Amino acid sequence: MDNFTYCAPTRYIFGRDTELETGRMTAQTGCSKVLIVSGGRSARQSGLLDRVMKSLDDVGIEYLELTGIRPNPTDDRVYEGIDLVRRNGVDGLLAIGGGSVIDTAKAIAGGALYDGDFWDFWAGKAVMQQALPIGVVLTIPAAGSEGSGNSVITKTDGMRKISLRTDYALRPKFAILNPELTFTLPPEQTAAGIADMMAHILERYFTPTSDVETTDRVSEGILMAIINEASKVMANPHDYQARANIMWAGTLAHNGVCGCGRREDWTSHGLEHELSALYGVTHGAGLAVVFPAWMTFMASHRPEKVAQLGRRVFGITGDDDKAVALKTVDSLRAFFGSIGLPLTLGQLGIPNPDYATLTRKFHENKGTPFGPYYPLQPIDTEAVYRLML
Amino acid sequence: MDNFTYCAPTRYIFGRDTELETGRMTAQTGCSKVLIVSGGRSARQSGLLDRVMKSLDDVGIEYLELTGIRPNPTDDRVYEGIDLVRRNGVDGLLAIGGGSVIDTAKAIAGGALYDGDFWDFWAGKAVMQQALPIGVVLTIPAAGSEGSGNSVITKTDGMRKISLRTDYALRPKFAILNPELTFTLPPEQTAAGIADMMAHILERYFTPTSDVETTDRVSEGILMAIINEASKVMANPHDYQARANIMWAGTLAHNGVCGCGRREDWTSHGLEHELSALYGVTHGAGLAVVFPAWMTFMASHRPEKVAQLGRRVFGITGDDDKAVALKTVDSLRAFFGSIGLPLTLGQLGIPNPDYATLTRKFHENKGTPFGPYYPLQPIDTEAVYRLML
Repeated sequence: MDNFTYCAPTRYIFGRDTELETGRMTAQTGCSKVLIVSGGRSARQSGLLDRVMKSLDDVGIEYLELTGIRPNPTDDRVYEGIDLVRRNGVDGLLAIGGGSVIDTAKAIAGGALYDGDFWDFWAGKAVMQQALPIGVVLTIPAAGSEGSGNSVITKTDGMRKISLRTDYALRPKFAILNPELTFTLPPEQTAAGIADMMAHILERYFTPTSDVETTDRVSEGILMAIINEASKVMANPHDYQARANIMWAGTLAHNGVCGCGRREDWTSHGLEHELSALYGVTHGAGLAVVFPAWMTFMASHRPEKVAQLGRRVFGITGDDDKAVALKTVDSLRAFFGSIGLPLTLGQLGIPNPDYATLTRKFHENKGTPFGPYYPLQPIDTEAVYRLML
Repeated sequence: MDNFTYCAPTRYIFGRDTELETGRMTAQTGCSKVLIVSGGRSARQSGLLDRVMKSLDDVGIEYLELTGIRPNPTDDRVYEGIDLVRRNGVDGLLAIGGGSVIDTAKAIAGGALYDGDFWDFWAGKAVMQQALPIGVVLTIPAAGSEGSGNSVITKTDGMRKISLRTDYALRPKFAILNPELTFTLPPEQTAAGIADMMAHILERYFTPTSDVETTDRVSEGILMAIINEASKVMANPHDYQARANIMWAGTLAHNGVCGCGRREDWTSHGLEHELSALYGVTHGAGLAVVFPAWMTFMASHRPEKVAQLGRRVFGITGDDDKAVALKTVDSLRAFFGSIGLPLTLGQLGIPNPDYATLTRKFHENKGTPFGPYYPLQPIDTEAVYRLML
């Protein structure tokens, strides 16, 4: 177990009708005029936006809107938001949506208080110390941004997608989590969200740090809960209880509790990142293809943690770590398949992957070798990509 | 799963030598003069107090001391502390010790900002909204007060021991957790602490609320980690990794994450409370006797959650919930026995318990019937006490 610091100060308001608390919670953060950031039409059509605005009206909080944030959010909308904030005396951000919307709101919140270009933080040229208060009404359980200090933004010029991690500055002040708001998510988005939250746990679970039993057990517990509830959610999208458990699991998966005391890996996110960049695949679906392939490679190179996952989460027995690890991959793939996720690059819509480019780009972005759990050389990386067939 | 709000904003600084950060962390809370609250001689003799004071000196923070806080801390020391704070312009509390020390510091922190008698909060006559900032250097992993908003104080007049739970006001601003500081705990104190933290999880685990899979799995995970690490700590008190896992588990056991989305029980704490009041037993040791007895009673009256605990945490198989529940009690008792905890009232030093008084006092304090998981009538309560033989 490594030394660590951990602080997750976000106030979670969880349950039915909790979006009606948005105004009261926003007032508690001390804001008087917020920029509402949202995505497509669904928040408006479902009436969610109206309910949130009414709750702001009720407490006398003014608001402006920045709408139409799309997946893989880009810097141009951030600049637009910062400009809106500055010209209108906005003193807080309110994100209504999923990860892309929240991450955009975070970037605006940090950028608005900074004299230079907000991208400096993402480019590593400056360290973010402060941001305007951020509130969240979550509609997609997946990215975990509602409880994290992270924000992933893509620079349009060059399409560089970079994740910024702050310890505290970008953690939302509050996050409103109403499972009912997720009833209407399409099945493929629900499934991709499940893969995404599982990946957030697994990236922390696969660690070179030993003796992290408490954090391991917490991580394994959340994974088991997700697997158990996923089939219910897929069978009945209006199952409130299953939706609730999935939603809360998605927040815990990424608010940092699964990383306490250990070095994290994040290799699979890096591998998926190149698939998204080159072929435009959905992040969660891509992860469902990447993780089992990476674990298959690890079965031959560093099987112990894969085997532990198999024994504890999937109930696989046996003494040989490699054999157990390979069965673990089978179990994980069977689970992903059961909720309709793609299992191969072909199913992901990439029949003829350009392995050389994927490998080159991965190491350009990550360095060589890369991989805290097991360092990948380019020859390894290409081998992992080839295991995705 | 019930609606809930959850906010655990304490900043945890975990690992070797972290007490050297005390000054820097205290300065970050904005304090300039703190009251150091501590217990017996060990913090001074071990040099811990000197290291903490030096780190305060290094950043120019002044301090006063309130020492000699004893187990089951009393209101007289709180009044003394409030007086010290007010007369000396103290603007923060620094607790160095375990639960009793932290709870005293919390009571002082809340009472100092209140015009009336601090006991009003514990007596339910006022709701605490604010407190001076509280920092913690933890030396005993058990009570979980370092991450909770709770404080248990005993009123000397009548010896009424009352637990106050605040949502936010009494949560420490920071908690420094160095597992090395726990190397020298006597075995019986280590074991009692382990029982205490397990009880904090079980009081939340036994709930009438259904469909709390995510919180259940997190709770089961932390319990498994504690059980797994406990034998290592008992065998080798200087096992840093095992101490670290136990310490972190003790914080998670009581910072609220195991209670999210459900009604909590706390019957066993109430039953133990009367044993402590009448016979002066150690809280954790008392819980090791109470919990298996209460679970034995539940095997006949509401076995399902006891059986789930047995299947998931102790690996017990079988279809009959009652039979599995009874085996679960055997497993829990075997575990407690293996780390040297008492298993009966006799072993606790109470050969002739006054069942009638224990039962009467329990219902005087808790009402009739009491028990969210299963409501106990006096006849049930006496039956549970008699199962402690």
